[in-house]
Amino acid sequence: MDIKEEVLKICKNAKKASMILASLSSEEKNNALFEMAKKIEKNAERIKEENRKDVEKAKKEGLSSALIDRLTLNDKRIASLSKSLKDVASLEDPVGEIEKMWKRPNGLIIGRMVVPIGVIGIIYESRPNVTVDAAALCLKAGNAVILRGGSEAFMSNCVLVDILKEALKKTKVPPESVQLIRTTKREAVNYMLKMNEYIDLIIPRGGESLIKAVTENSTIPVNKHYKGVCHTFVDSEADLDMAEKICFNAKVQRPGVCNAMETLLVDKRIAESFLPRMIEKFKKAGVEIRGDEKTKKIVPDIKDATEDDWFCEYLDLILSVKVVGGIEEAIEHINYYGSHHSDAIITQNYAKAKKFLQEVDSAAVYVNASTRFTDGGEFGMGAEIGISTDKLHARGPMGVRELTSCKFIILGEGQIRE
Amino acid sequence: MDIKEEVLKICKNAKKASMILASLSSEEKNNALFEMAKKIEKNAERIKEENRKDVEKAKKEGLSSALIDRLTLNDKRIASLSKSLKDVASLEDPVGEIEKMWKRPNGLIIGRMVVPIGVIGIIYESRPNVTVDAAALCLKAGNAVILRGGSEAFMSNCVLVDILKEALKKTKVPPESVQLIRTTKREAVNYMLKMNEYIDLIIPRGGESLIKAVTENSTIPVNKHYKGVCHTFVDSEADLDMAEKICFNAKVQRPGVCNAMETLLVDKRIAESFLPRMIEKFKKAGVEIRGDEKTKKIVPDIKDATEDDWFCEYLDLILSVKVVGGIEEAIEHINYYGSHHSDAIITQNYAKAKKFLQEVDSAAVYVNASTRFTDGGEFGMGAEIGISTDKLHARGPMGVRELTSCKFIILGEGQIRE
Repeated sequence: MDIKEEVLKICKNAKKASMILASLSSEEKNNALFEMAKKIEKNAERIKEENRKDVEKAKKEGLSSALIDRLTLNDKRIASLSKSLKDVASLEDPVGEIEKMWKRPNGLIIGRMVVPIGVIGIIYESRPNVTVDAAALCLKAGNAVILRGGSEAFMSNCVLVDILKEALKKTKVPPESVQLIRTTKREAVNYMLKMNEYIDLIIPRGGESLIKAVTENSTIPVNKHYKGVCHTFVDSEADLDMAEKICFNAKVQRPGVCNAMETLLVDKRIAESFLPRMIEKFKKAGVEIRGDEKTKKIVPDIKDATEDDWFCEYLDLILSVKVVGGIEEAIEHINYYGSHHSDAIITQNYAKAKKFLQEVDSAAVYVNASTRFTDGGEFGMGAEIGISTDKLHARGPMGVRELTSCKFIILGEGQIRE
Repeated sequence: MDIKEEVLKICKNAKKASMILASLSSEEKNNALFEMAKKIEKNAERIKEENRKDVEKAKKEGLSSALIDRLTLNDKRIASLSKSLKDVASLEDPVGEIEKMWKRPNGLIIGRMVVPIGVIGIIYESRPNVTVDAAALCLKAGNAVILRGGSEAFMSNCVLVDILKEALKKTKVPPESVQLIRTTKREAVNYMLKMNEYIDLIIPRGGESLIKAVTENSTIPVNKHYKGVCHTFVDSEADLDMAEKICFNAKVQRPGVCNAMETLLVDKRIAESFLPRMIEKFKKAGVEIRGDEKTKKIVPDIKDATEDDWFCEYLDLILSVKVVGGIEEAIEHINYYGSHHSDAIITQNYAKAKKFLQEVDSAAVYVNASTRFTDGGEFGMGAEIGISTDKLHARGPMGVRELTSCKFIILGEGQIRE
């Protein structure tokens, strides 16, 4: 079978599975999630064996030790895969919920019912745990999923999906609810992106080139999970001790994730009192600082920030720093250079806090807290499939509810339109 | 200036305008809508003069009298343009509303704030009133709009947008909030569909070829307002008098719109008692009936329905009729041949009503009412920009609220992530 036919077959099976999935009860779906969790635990050795092949290949190809670490599945990580399946089972099932019902003057009763989206395609570059997490969340929301992982994790993804499908055989959920595109050839993605008839939503998770390729080639609606160029603006009326603690956390606690701070903006009126101590603290933690001219005047011993730095998601212990004239310039910088992900102001001034919340055009806008909180779990929404940087359908952490659609139901007793 | 530059300039201006619009108060936006309404009324003669040019061109080109009628703007229709602007002003403004706030265990207070989407591009083929209605709804929701109307209404659209922009000059709303692509060349649309950086959403309203061209070429998120192949299923346990009344209304009251019935499905157990009287009534009203074999056995004097008929949106006094074995076959037919727009069951049986509501995969699913109610006004949502047949972002009537996005706001007091 050629690749196009293979992709088409996967899509058709997913569509069929999605129609069965849509009418299953929460209990039936949760039962499947528990079976999947059990099967993952039981097959830990098998998973490690396949994962070793990916890791060895990665080593041969000279991938960075950080990437190899992210790729590696050990007993602890396999146990956490299993746990995350059980966690998703414990989440509330939104499907079938009727959000609101209202009555019209003619007696019609109208409501909005939450329904699954249908078939979701996920294209990702990340660690193999995304394979399991994405499958679990889609299934919980009643959707069939077609996964296309990165080539580095190919063997791991194959064995994980095999195991999930084996688990589903014992349940009411059709095994075709979770499928993997089992080729690393690029053309498979291009075929996938044209399958409007079968796939309802494409979620790309990854870097600029992946997102760009998907956006340009997809005829299916896309919900982008793009980079996080997150800012913290320390206002002239900030509590500087609080600012220091928050900025340090936002940069250093876990620099490799999308909600970490990449650019620090500081009001010129407190720059001289704040920057030396803050930069000192960052340097001690191994953070490389790249500053604009004004920053360098205050703390000379740092690198220059270039125009590119302001657009850059380092995902590393690097920070760009700029001294701004005030809140206006800070907001302008964030809306222009940022990625509309997560941005914070540190201030004790009410009017400036309100202005920042209103004018910063990002998925998550903070007052006096670390941007590291942008996360489904931290927001109280449960597990998430990623952080949407789009404005349509879902913006910010995308959990089970964001993986649903709705339909209007209308209850009449013979009403006709005059 | 070449077309590409022209489109780019329009997009840049729209983006700038949208940033100002986003921070205006409801009062400032409503004031603009009232100014627009006044200006339309005052310029009725000027509008009619330009409209006459479109009408004359249409006559020369031999357009159907129905199309010419839809194109024509007379005093009554101009007054209704003005009224619809005032109606939109009277709608609730969702922007700035915080839908819900909740508190996390660490004390963070999190809320979802309604915000405008930004810049919306609307590509449509319809009557010139869409120009005014779309501009009003986008503006109310705080969005700038870029309009691209059909070539038949080119002169009318130009004068209408001129007048709207003149009205805006007196207000806080920047005139660039409403712009028109002033060329009928196709390439302008293609440039528009690649302006990801400036346009946040494309709404195509029209026939199959328009929707297809937009979906295939756009790198911007698209919300499709596609055709309505709407069904009514008369169940074996229907009140046949009610069924007759509802079916007649769904087909005949206004056949040229997307929520009119195109296919009637009848349970075989009541087909012999129901179809003769129903078809008789339809024929008296001038409806052409195209039936399947079983229908023809009961009422022989009708045309044959072909496979194409089941997919067809007639928008005319034509109806396809099929006798089905029961609710299962009816649902299967609707989900396969329909356009997932509006579908109804007529029944007195509780279980079948519930099953139909759950299993029919359409934007609006009815029990015992005419599909003609799928409409923002009839649903109590106010004016609408169209009926979304997509599952993402908005499904069904798309009013002011569906023209918004949201952002998370997070209020802290020094929280950091451990």
